[in-house]
Amino acid sequence: MSYFDAASAAPLHPVAREALLASLDEGWADPARPYREGRRARLLLDAAREAAAEAVGCRPDELVFTPSGTQAVHSAISGTLAARRRVGRRLVHSAVEHSAVLHAAAVHEAAGGSVSEVGVDRTGRVDAADFAAALASGTALAALQSANHEVGTEQPVAEAADACRAADVPLLVDAAQSLAWGPVGGAWSLLAGSAHKWGGPPGVGLLVVRKGTRFAPQGPLDERESGRVPGFENIPAVVAAAASLRAVQAEAAAEAVRLRGLVDRIRTRVAESVPDTEVVGDPVNRLPHLVTFSCLYVDGETLLHELDRAGFSVSSGSSCTSGTLTPSHVLRAMGVLSEGNVRVSLPAGTAEADVDRFLEVLPEAVRSVREKLGAPAAGSAPSPAAERVVDALGKRCPVPVIELAKVIGDVPVGATLTVLADDEAARLDIPAWCGMRGQEYVGERAAERGAAYVVRRLV
Amino acid sequence: MSYFDAASAAPLHPVAREALLASLDEGWADPARPYREGRRARLLLDAAREAAAEAVGCRPDELVFTPSGTQAVHSAISGTLAARRRVGRRLVHSAVEHSAVLHAAAVHEAAGGSVSEVGVDRTGRVDAADFAAALASGTALAALQSANHEVGTEQPVAEAADACRAADVPLLVDAAQSLAWGPVGGAWSLLAGSAHKWGGPPGVGLLVVRKGTRFAPQGPLDERESGRVPGFENIPAVVAAAASLRAVQAEAAAEAVRLRGLVDRIRTRVAESVPDTEVVGDPVNRLPHLVTFSCLYVDGETLLHELDRAGFSVSSGSSCTSGTLTPSHVLRAMGVLSEGNVRVSLPAGTAEADVDRFLEVLPEAVRSVREKLGAPAAGSAPSPAAERVVDALGKRCPVPVIELAKVIGDVPVGATLTVLADDEAARLDIPAWCGMRGQEYVGERAAERGAAYVVRRLV
Repeated sequence: MSYFDAASAAPLHPVAREALLASLDEGWADPARPYREGRRARLLLDAAREAAAEAVGCRPDELVFTPSGTQAVHSAISGTLAARRRVGRRLVHSAVEHSAVLHAAAVHEAAGGSVSEVGVDRTGRVDAADFAAALASGTALAALQSANHEVGTEQPVAEAADACRAADVPLLVDAAQSLAWGPVGGAWSLLAGSAHKWGGPPGVGLLVVRKGTRFAPQGPLDERESGRVPGFENIPAVVAAAASLRAVQAEAAAEAVRLRGLVDRIRTRVAESVPDTEVVGDPVNRLPHLVTFSCLYVDGETLLHELDRAGFSVSSGSSCTSGTLTPSHVLRAMGVLSEGNVRVSLPAGTAEADVDRFLEVLPEAVRSVREKLGAPAAGSAPSPAAERVVDALGKRCPVPVIELAKVIGDVPVGATLTVLADDEAARLDIPAWCGMRGQEYVGERAAERGAAYVVRRLV
Repeated sequence: MSYFDAASAAPLHPVAREALLASLDEGWADPARPYREGRRARLLLDAAREAAAEAVGCRPDELVFTPSGTQAVHSAISGTLAARRRVGRRLVHSAVEHSAVLHAAAVHEAAGGSVSEVGVDRTGRVDAADFAAALASGTALAALQSANHEVGTEQPVAEAADACRAADVPLLVDAAQSLAWGPVGGAWSLLAGSAHKWGGPPGVGLLVVRKGTRFAPQGPLDERESGRVPGFENIPAVVAAAASLRAVQAEAAAEAVRLRGLVDRIRTRVAESVPDTEVVGDPVNRLPHLVTFSCLYVDGETLLHELDRAGFSVSSGSSCTSGTLTPSHVLRAMGVLSEGNVRVSLPAGTAEADVDRFLEVLPEAVRSVREKLGAPAAGSAPSPAAERVVDALGKRCPVPVIELAKVIGDVPVGATLTVLADDEAARLDIPAWCGMRGQEYVGERAAERGAAYVVRRLV
């Protein structure tokens, strides 16, 4: 079995396990109590806070532990927006933030606030100048992830932080994906992290609010964690989280080089050995352990199932795996192919041999899914029956694109073909297919059902 | 060392430890993912939910795991008040609920809702008829704890639930203190619990919303835990929490009898061996493991320190230990003495010998604190200098009562004495002292600073 989904959750680091076991016996009491067991718990909590603060690059009194990275993000956003309400009610964030940011933004919008989304390029990267331009007057908070969770692209956090400072707007950095690799540089104001992403236990997030940042925790009062996180402290898990963060950061420099090599191998070999595949995300400025690609004519769910049977655990941003019928908002914002999407994120310590085995298994897995779906083989002859309109209504991703590919060869060069489709992924995947195939995507028209996508054959 | 503060946090039960260790290796992955590790995590989570639901007495799909009992209470209250907003904006709760309820009520009030507090008798018990009478039209939610966390008194939950049902109002039961001893009977609608109170790990609470109860989770969307709890599931801790709940409930019947015997011994012996002490809370209808008493002329903080030095960890609701300068809201609502307050809550498995040693140590600890504070010895002669006004302004609990006791003997029987005090605890402790001493508490007058408390000597 090879687990290649570290970006969802990393297996527990041995240091985390050891620290957790040790503190189960020492850290269960209430750290607010004045007796022996309480004082012991308090010492553990204080030491964990100092260790985590050092790893993050902040003061211990700027850092609180939350029950999850999600709650850290929610609380960072609600607490800053409330404290800066008089400045304005505008929240700025990139289009590729984690859903925790998007959901908190939706609550803000529902309550009468305004939200500005800053788009990304085809690599998933925000342009720092675009981000700076979005910081209009009345902006209470801006949010930018350190690196994207689906495609690994690093964001220009330091430049964004400078722009925020110049505009007198606090910047929240969602560092969930990158903290294992080191602290986030730059003059950010708030930062959120999640321990189970770096090999710490589940149940621990962290929220940093730098001194001088106005912050008003929302929800019922609670005296714990500087009044910022209600509920009894989870000290054994917090100790384990802090210990493992230090441990993974100490190993990060060497492990990053090694995993970057393996990921480069995947990037190259997938492009070579799997036809009609697009590797997405920035090829250089990216997380060292993560690579994402999309395969034409492939249903993401079936491919994940094939790979699982072959012993590989990966994830996907394809709509056919999410249950929502819409492809990942990250792939949408990038404007890249979403069908047959696979995210590989290697946990620290991944063996080279496992990656090589994955690269052996993948081409056949993709081929067999395509065969099941009746996708056109690479370079195959066009189907005999030519139709200027392809009716793919009611067909789910990736079937509309498969139907398109089957008949394009029968369309005279220069003529157009219309695809009727009501699957949301078609809006992303038909233009992406055109880009990959050198055909022209003319545009979309309203239709009685779904939409009509017009393609002109160029080659 | 004897840890007698199980009501704050219980040490980890061996079953919890074992389950936690086992599930650290099996339960770290994302249970929403379709691959092997995700499916294994999902199985563990489902099994934990079934076990917890059985122990609580509900359906598995009515129960979600939260990061703490506090968050379960907060979310129960905000979710029900929001869903029933059209019915009304009134929240009813007893005066002795946990601060998690009071703080959520304060948020509701600040947002324009109304809150009705139902008082308790001197044992800390709500009268079911009073509770029913408070359920006026427009009541969106009522909250009643199963048993009080400071004095152990059980509340009439089943009767309150019947009254709520008749009034078509959902009842939230905070069962944090009682779940270890068994499920809560009655037709309640919502229930909250906290694993670290029953020997489970910290980081796990549970929230039950019975079918048919209108509930609208507040805050940002999140698909986990039926959309009721944002953030990555803490599966190893949840598994440990469920396993230990079943284990402690299986041992509960026998252990309750044993601990009830030890607590009865404390109740009797404290009253006999420590002069000027009031044992508070219902003597019969109470948690089996918890007893609370208050000692006249004693500073709670110093007494806790003395007991800690002697190897006993207990807690206190005296103002002098809370850092807030106001005594526990529970003792205030009961109208009992708050000074020198000690709560003893025995963890399962407490040895009889440790209780006996506590009973040996306690009288001397109380005596030495009184001596340090210059308290009048039991039956001592009155001090020579009689004053009709005692100026205790600026003096902290228990000094105002000590000063009162020193001079009362010089006041002619039938005459009054006025105590000037600005410590909030005096408002509770001077009337309580009068009750214990057979003197008449005449009442309170406004004063230039603090208040003037008038006492008439009767004996």
